[in-house]
Amino acid sequence: MLTHPTPFPDTLLGATIAAVIPRDAAAERAARERLDAMTKPRGSLGVLEDVAAQLAGIAGSCPAPLPTPATVAVFAGDHGVHAQGVTPWPQEVTAQMVGNFLGGGAVVNAFAAEVGATVVVVDVGVAGPLDPADGLLDRKVRLGTADLSVEPAMTPDEARRAVEVGIEVATSLAPGSGCLITGDMGIANTTASAALVCAFTGAAPAAATGRGTGVDDPTLARKVEVVTRAVSRLTEPPTTPETALAVLAEIGGLEHAALAGFIIGAAASRTPVLLDGVIAGSAALVAAALCSPALEYALAGHTSAEPGHGFALAHLGLRPLLGLDLRLGEGTGAVLSLPLVTSAARALRDVATFDSAGVTEKSG
Amino acid sequence: MLTHPTPFPDTLLGATIAAVIPRDAAAERAARERLDAMTKPRGSLGVLEDVAAQLAGIAGSCPAPLPTPATVAVFAGDHGVHAQGVTPWPQEVTAQMVGNFLGGGAVVNAFAAEVGATVVVVDVGVAGPLDPADGLLDRKVRLGTADLSVEPAMTPDEARRAVEVGIEVATSLAPGSGCLITGDMGIANTTASAALVCAFTGAAPAAATGRGTGVDDPTLARKVEVVTRAVSRLTEPPTTPETALAVLAEIGGLEHAALAGFIIGAAASRTPVLLDGVIAGSAALVAAALCSPALEYALAGHTSAEPGHGFALAHLGLRPLLGLDLRLGEGTGAVLSLPLVTSAARALRDVATFDSAGVTEKSG
Repeated sequence: MLTHPTPFPDTLLGATIAAVIPRDAAAERAARERLDAMTKPRGSLGVLEDVAAQLAGIAGSCPAPLPTPATVAVFAGDHGVHAQGVTPWPQEVTAQMVGNFLGGGAVVNAFAAEVGATVVVVDVGVAGPLDPADGLLDRKVRLGTADLSVEPAMTPDEARRAVEVGIEVATSLAPGSGCLITGDMGIANTTASAALVCAFTGAAPAAATGRGTGVDDPTLARKVEVVTRAVSRLTEPPTTPETALAVLAEIGGLEHAALAGFIIGAAASRTPVLLDGVIAGSAALVAAALCSPALEYALAGHTSAEPGHGFALAHLGLRPLLGLDLRLGEGTGAVLSLPLVTSAARALRDVATFDSAGVTEKSG
Repeated sequence: MLTHPTPFPDTLLGATIAAVIPRDAAAERAARERLDAMTKPRGSLGVLEDVAAQLAGIAGSCPAPLPTPATVAVFAGDHGVHAQGVTPWPQEVTAQMVGNFLGGGAVVNAFAAEVGATVVVVDVGVAGPLDPADGLLDRKVRLGTADLSVEPAMTPDEARRAVEVGIEVATSLAPGSGCLITGDMGIANTTASAALVCAFTGAAPAAATGRGTGVDDPTLARKVEVVTRAVSRLTEPPTTPETALAVLAEIGGLEHAALAGFIIGAAASRTPVLLDGVIAGSAALVAAALCSPALEYALAGHTSAEPGHGFALAHLGLRPLLGLDLRLGEGTGAVLSLPLVTSAARALRDVATFDSAGVTEKSG
């Protein structure tokens, strides 16, 4: 009898989890040696030396190829918990912003254009029907979640299907992308994120729940109360893949599920994945519980102003590349971090060594 | 009799100081209003909203033009204090690295290539002769400074001429550049930087002196002792333009002087200037004392691992865009921050408003 049976047998999720392998340690060692031979003091590129080595380990080669072109997938979904008054934004803004992404008018479009990334939008659960459009993938699992404060947000089967949407999107984009970037849109989705952070890290709802887009004190108090009720309904900790999926179904969002799958799919495709803010961070907690080695392929693009994000990053052991007090989502923070990642790769590939450049190394 | 006579009459420095005007407040207000009307929660771009408004104020228009193309000027100089054993790197590495920059093999070249910036190298005081080369500006004021731990590093006239080198470089590059970026090369220049930081901020030498490229404990102790001796020789605080120039001459470096002029020249040309690490930060302290409004045109690209940099940024009230534990110099940290600055400008220019995109704004 197997002591660690493969989870989710005979599903795309199970097969993808089984396909994820650790990074290539030899390529990472080669990258560290190359970084030390380059015309600069050892370690002087700080965090970017870790990034360069990670990229080599992901690619299995040193130097690693540049992580370009990059594609940001914006997963959109709605949330039944919107009915609890956790945000002043109307629910229809989710669908309206999908239109804005497709029209190129949102911040993520501007940032992506600046750094050379392509934006695709995935409807994994917007509450209403969306017109077909170029750049929009219709992968709707259901018309928004149920209200996580009073009942399961979705069924475990729906949660798995939403995870598999993310897997399919990642594995279809990976062959043409040097890097995948997480994006999200969903009015009220910081509430579901806070609930997931509490469930997966043990953080207290009052500490992990934030103001999202900038809610006032009474709304924040409602959010904390809603998160507390949701988390208190959980009956078992998410310590196994199966219980992680159950918790995701109970208190998560459809875009969180898809993002967890997107991370696992990127890892299975041996493609680096840049994580955006608290939505991606809470989804990454789910991904780590479903498939721990998948996180070896992830980089934290930034840390947002939302407190739950800090808990998630600390739990995952990820150091964010940027800290600009962003609290927008859409993938904006991760997109902004892309030039840092590509620059790290380019330095590893292009910088001369002391020998090749005829530069004298320090004494002692 | 004038109570505030123009400093340095009948010099390029004096004329340039007089040409610097504050940013355009009306353009900045227009930028804030536009940011609030864009399809995103108010304030959700964090620090980048301040950057976007600053760029509008610098340009005197909203939206501001994109700050491209960008040019990084790497000012190279040598330091007589090298004789005190403050670094394990041989002095000739300064000239060798100039060759590496010109050959495209240094980290700043890789990063500049990635973000689309051009690198120029300015010899303001390398200790030996350099062969002419494309991309190298020969503006040598003297063959390295004297040993600041025992005598004035340079004369006040040399310091002024080195400042004017920076002014000339900035004003000649500005018409073809949307953004100027500070770079530097000079073995032992973190020692002069620490001395300047102590003199201009009042920080203690033991607190403001760091390991530079990564020196060991005995070398660090020598650096602290050298900085202490240098600063103790100063007879008056640098509270006026004239005393600031005198302090710069006594304990600074030629590249520090040039960088101070580069910042003032950028401001006089109404061009944003991205500051790199502790060398640029200490030079910015000099620039602020010479011409306080010049700093309105500066952005701190990053905060380095060198402790003196934190003192300088705090004194100047600048928030760094990046914090990656870099400790390389060359302009690397500032170059890496360029995509953040251009992305802020692009968002201000391109993002749709709630009205134009048909997105419902939040209630309340």
